[in-house]
Amino acid sequence: MSPIAEIICVGTELLLGSTLNTNAHYLAQQLAHLGISHYYQTVVGDNPERLKQVLDSACARSQLLIFTGGLGPTPDDLTTETLADFFHTPLEERTEVIDLIRQRYAQRGRIMSPSNRKQALLPKGSHLLPNPTGTAPGMIWEPRPGLVLLTFPGVPTEMHRMWQETAIPYLKGRGWGQQVIHSRLLRYWGIAEAALAEKVHPFFQLNNPTVAPYVSYGEVHLRISARASSVAEAQALIKPVEDKLRHITGDDCFGADQDSLASVVGDLLLNQEASLAVAESCTGGGLGQLLTGVPGSSRYFIGGAIAYDNRVKVSLLGVKEETLAREGAVSHSVAMEMALGIQSRLQTTWGVSITGIAGPEGGTSEKPVGLVYIGISDENQQARSFEFNFGSIQGREWVRRLSAHTALDIVRRELLTALKK
Amino acid sequence: MSPIAEIICVGTELLLGSTLNTNAHYLAQQLAHLGISHYYQTVVGDNPERLKQVLDSACARSQLLIFTGGLGPTPDDLTTETLADFFHTPLEERTEVIDLIRQRYAQRGRIMSPSNRKQALLPKGSHLLPNPTGTAPGMIWEPRPGLVLLTFPGVPTEMHRMWQETAIPYLKGRGWGQQVIHSRLLRYWGIAEAALAEKVHPFFQLNNPTVAPYVSYGEVHLRISARASSVAEAQALIKPVEDKLRHITGDDCFGADQDSLASVVGDLLLNQEASLAVAESCTGGGLGQLLTGVPGSSRYFIGGAIAYDNRVKVSLLGVKEETLAREGAVSHSVAMEMALGIQSRLQTTWGVSITGIAGPEGGTSEKPVGLVYIGISDENQQARSFEFNFGSIQGREWVRRLSAHTALDIVRRELLTALKK
Repeated sequence: MSPIAEIICVGTELLLGSTLNTNAHYLAQQLAHLGISHYYQTVVGDNPERLKQVLDSACARSQLLIFTGGLGPTPDDLTTETLADFFHTPLEERTEVIDLIRQRYAQRGRIMSPSNRKQALLPKGSHLLPNPTGTAPGMIWEPRPGLVLLTFPGVPTEMHRMWQETAIPYLKGRGWGQQVIHSRLLRYWGIAEAALAEKVHPFFQLNNPTVAPYVSYGEVHLRISARASSVAEAQALIKPVEDKLRHITGDDCFGADQDSLASVVGDLLLNQEASLAVAESCTGGGLGQLLTGVPGSSRYFIGGAIAYDNRVKVSLLGVKEETLAREGAVSHSVAMEMALGIQSRLQTTWGVSITGIAGPEGGTSEKPVGLVYIGISDENQQARSFEFNFGSIQGREWVRRLSAHTALDIVRRELLTALKK
Repeated sequence: MSPIAEIICVGTELLLGSTLNTNAHYLAQQLAHLGISHYYQTVVGDNPERLKQVLDSACARSQLLIFTGGLGPTPDDLTTETLADFFHTPLEERTEVIDLIRQRYAQRGRIMSPSNRKQALLPKGSHLLPNPTGTAPGMIWEPRPGLVLLTFPGVPTEMHRMWQETAIPYLKGRGWGQQVIHSRLLRYWGIAEAALAEKVHPFFQLNNPTVAPYVSYGEVHLRISARASSVAEAQALIKPVEDKLRHITGDDCFGADQDSLASVVGDLLLNQEASLAVAESCTGGGLGQLLTGVPGSSRYFIGGAIAYDNRVKVSLLGVKEETLAREGAVSHSVAMEMALGIQSRLQTTWGVSITGIAGPEGGTSEKPVGLVYIGISDENQQARSFEFNFGSIQGREWVRRLSAHTALDIVRRELLTALKK
């Protein structure tokens, strides 16, 4: 039976906002992989009284306390001595640590500072948790039966190596962390979180695997997490739930895990031996950038035009002057002419275009900021276009981001339709 | 007298390690800027009983509790109702919130889901903390004298705006956070952190303001921070230090604070009444995207070509077939022909081009992954090109990012030279 863990990060720099707490994130992921639950993470400054307050709560509710930070040689590094004091245990000097630190310094042609001696003091009865890449060792200590403390320095690279090389084998050796939590992320575009949640809400009651919705920069996710004794077993629990969710949500689900809209579009283009070119106005290259972010995209992405100025829409894309004059650059007709123009100039199977008003300037009452037309031209040189209003509230970059991703989603849905024909 | 604050982040995704807790980091920085101390940060899952345990401790030791997360429309979003329950206060529906959510949905052509109604429930006696960019509002609530709760959604961009627009004025209105820490960030491109640090190291000993170097995605920063009783007073402390630093570091400093390479290039182009076009291969539109990220960039940025495939380099840019055959697409000559080609086709004052090998595939022993040529063509149609090797270790996106930013820096330095002539 695995213990309940708790993560306690010690460091005034975390309270001042000088340092982003990536250690808690790393440890949380590691504990999840091991199937060891934790319910609390705490950050506290380099202050013995406050650290003791945190210990009071933590010892009452958790059995495995994992500390980072406060192991250095300077006077504000107080974690080890505060823990010893809390459990009324004397510190003792470990000569093997002194020798190691001295060696470490000698390797770099330096002499050990007297202040480093402090790092060799560990509570009586604790075990050394070696630090192969730094001078601050940690410890594994069971100050009373059923309560284990692990300490790590705050430097992420040192902590990671100590976790992998010593902590994981220790935990497994105790018969803990035999369970794994494995997750699968289903990714959605073109449906709001609330609408998706309503379609699949009965799944939120499941226990193993669990299903939960998230939003991330315009994408909506469903995370399916299973607890099992192996990854394969967890995957077997996830699979039928994923199948049902995909069945219910259909093409709104564009992929899973590491997939992106651009990679999924790339796979579809490759499968259909098709090629794509882009014509961008308000996104200024952002759609091309997303497409070429996928390694190997040169097999289907040919290129495009950044037609920011209307003259470029005419000269590089062959948009008609009279269309621009009659309907304006931000219109269905111009979007379609742009898509057709780049498709025929670069001789690709598909052409896609974006023209819109990203703001903050340039909006009118008929054509407000956030109005965007996305054009697509298919293998028969038939063009269509779609109108969106992404609003002005979230700003220029948001409109541009939604525009580029929505264009990818339109290409994806067109390619799926072509596939089904 | 400012209260002692405490940061409480609610979300099982933080415990699972799915999400890095950038919210605690942001709030820590913000509190530091306001001179409001906080001694604890806690992360707890979407679980009412555990959240109440956290509340027990927090209410006993802090006077300003700041919550993020758990305000969404789904059943696992429990923060508001748990707080109401903890303080034995009934929830009431705020019709103004319903109206706002409905409007927000309507703007995007969608209909509000019934589950969104949940987001309009706030404890009796609390004040709405408006969310201008999302559907989940927060609240400002003083459930008993001397204890203030602020709640924010977990989405960072929404939280930041709510903090800036409502929380800061509220805190200042109560007479809290009167000491300010004000910072000025000097931004550098084209110099390594260590080299910059050696040039200015005596400044690192200063006390008020302090000067410290940082690296961020290839940019190097010097942060000058002053503590004072007003922003104006802090700025007066910063100004002479900034002047000396700029004098020492010259043109390597491209700007300050909100400046970006793209905005600085834009300002220089505007001042010189010049225009710019781009021709991109390995960046696939990323340079155009950076340039058009600046509002008003249509005054100097005309457009460009994404010449990913060699055929496009020929058809849209007029690169000679024999140059491609003789020197390869990744070469000084092709970079220069691309810059000249887009400049003449779009009739701009300047043309800039990028051609390189972003990887992970496509490298050879003569032309390894990370090799990039940047071409520039000036107002006299004279082209030059520059060779870079950005290496392969940090991956494809890193090469593309450095390429686009370095191209902007080259344009910036050329425009500065033109200015000095």
